[in-house]
Amino acid sequence: MAKETGGGGETPRAVVGRLSLYLRQLELLERAGAATVSSRQLGAALELSDAQVRKDLANFGQFGFRGIGYPVTPLRAAVRAVLGVDRKWRAAVIGAGNLGRALLGYRGFQERGFEICAVFDNDASVVGKKVRGREVWPMEKMREVVRRERVELALIAVPAEAAQSVATEAAAAGVAGILNFAPVTLKVEEAVNVVNVDLGLQLEQLVFQVHQRATEARQNTAG
Amino acid sequence: MAKETGGGGETPRAVVGRLSLYLRQLELLERAGAATVSSRQLGAALELSDAQVRKDLANFGQFGFRGIGYPVTPLRAAVRAVLGVDRKWRAAVIGAGNLGRALLGYRGFQERGFEICAVFDNDASVVGKKVRGREVWPMEKMREVVRRERVELALIAVPAEAAQSVATEAAAAGVAGILNFAPVTLKVEEAVNVVNVDLGLQLEQLVFQVHQRATEARQNTAG
Repeated sequence: MAKETGGGGETPRAVVGRLSLYLRQLELLERAGAATVSSRQLGAALELSDAQVRKDLANFGQFGFRGIGYPVTPLRAAVRAVLGVDRKWRAAVIGAGNLGRALLGYRGFQERGFEICAVFDNDASVVGKKVRGREVWPMEKMREVVRRERVELALIAVPAEAAQSVATEAAAAGVAGILNFAPVTLKVEEAVNVVNVDLGLQLEQLVFQVHQRATEARQNTAG
Repeated sequence: MAKETGGGGETPRAVVGRLSLYLRQLELLERAGAATVSSRQLGAALELSDAQVRKDLANFGQFGFRGIGYPVTPLRAAVRAVLGVDRKWRAAVIGAGNLGRALLGYRGFQERGFEICAVFDNDASVVGKKVRGREVWPMEKMREVVRRERVELALIAVPAEAAQSVATEAAAAGVAGILNFAPVTLKVEEAVNVVNVDLGLQLEQLVFQVHQRATEARQNTAG
C-alpha cells in the first residue's frame, strides 16, 4: 500500500467514502447475481470517470481484466478487507443522553458487524442503571472497562462542551478510533483516528437535490 | 446545467458529497485569506486528480483561469448557489424520541442556515408539550402545520417500522426533501428527494483508518 507523504497519516475522507460506496455498489451487484462489473459501470453509479475508478481500485492490487471487468465477489471481499470490515469491531458509546440512546438502538451498526459493548455517562441518575439493555458505567471507569471489554472504538455523543475531555479520556483508555458526533474539532494524540459525523453536510446534500429539482422544473416551465 | 439522462432525476451522492467537500475546503481557504486556488491544490485535499476537479467544477460555469487557478470567494459563492445553501431552509423533525431530540439540539444545523420550525410525534404523552423549546404536533396535523410553517424538509427520526408511513405523510403534506435516519429504503413519490444518513458507513470510514494504521504499524515493525 502506498505510503502517505507528510505526517498525520490521515486518510482523505473522500477516498474512504468512495471505498464504502464501491462496497455498497458491489453488495447490490452481488445480490443481483452479477459475476463481473466494468470500471465504467461502477463509475456510472458514483458519477466517477472509469479512469478514476481504475486508479482507486488499483491501490489494492490487480483485479480488473481488460475486456472482462472486475469479478464482483472477489472485489467485494478485497474492498471489505481493505476497509477492515471483514471482522467484528467492539465499540463504546460515550454519553447516555438522547443521541447516545439513539445510537444504542441503531440497527445498522449490528448489521455491519459493530458491537456496542459499553456505555459511559457522568450523570449520577443514569450511572449503574441499564439503558437499552446495557449497564451505564461512570466516566471514571473508562480505562478499566475499555481494557476489560476490549473496546476499540468510541462513539462520542456528549454535548459539544464536554466532547474534548471525554475524547482525551477515551484516547488515554486506549481506543484506536473515535466517531465524533459533537460539532467541534477534537484534538487527540496522533495514534487515535477521528471521524466527524457532519449532519449539516448530509442536510446540505438533500438541499442540493431539492434545489436542483426546483431549478430544472423552472427551466422546463420557462422553455 | 447539464440534464441528467434517464428518469428519476436522482443526483449521484458522490457528486453532491464532493461539492460539499469543495465548499468546506473553500471556506477554510477563504478564512485563511487565500485569493486563488489551483485544481491541483483542491484535488490534493480531497485525493482527486486535477482533471476530476476541473470536470466537477466545469459543470457550473467557467471559473478557472489557466496559470492563475480559481478565485476562492467567487467560487465559494458559486458552489453555495449550486448547492442551494445560499438561503435559509425550513425543516421539521418527525419523531420526538431520542434521535429527534438530539437533532433538535444539534448546533450544526443552525450554523448552516437550517431552521427547525416544527416537531411531530404520535405519542400522546409528548404531543402538545414543548421539547427543546418547540411544541410537538400530532402526526395528523402534519399537512396543516407543514403548509402554515412553510416546511420544505423533513428529518425522519422514527423507528424503522414507522418510517415509511411518516414519509408518505410528509410527502403528501408537501415537503420537497426527506433526510432519513431510519435504516430502511423509503418509497416516496418521484417529486420528493430522499437522502439516507448511513451511520454504518460513517463508522466504516473510521474502521478503515484504524485498520490502515494498524497495518502500517505491523509493516514498520516487520521491516
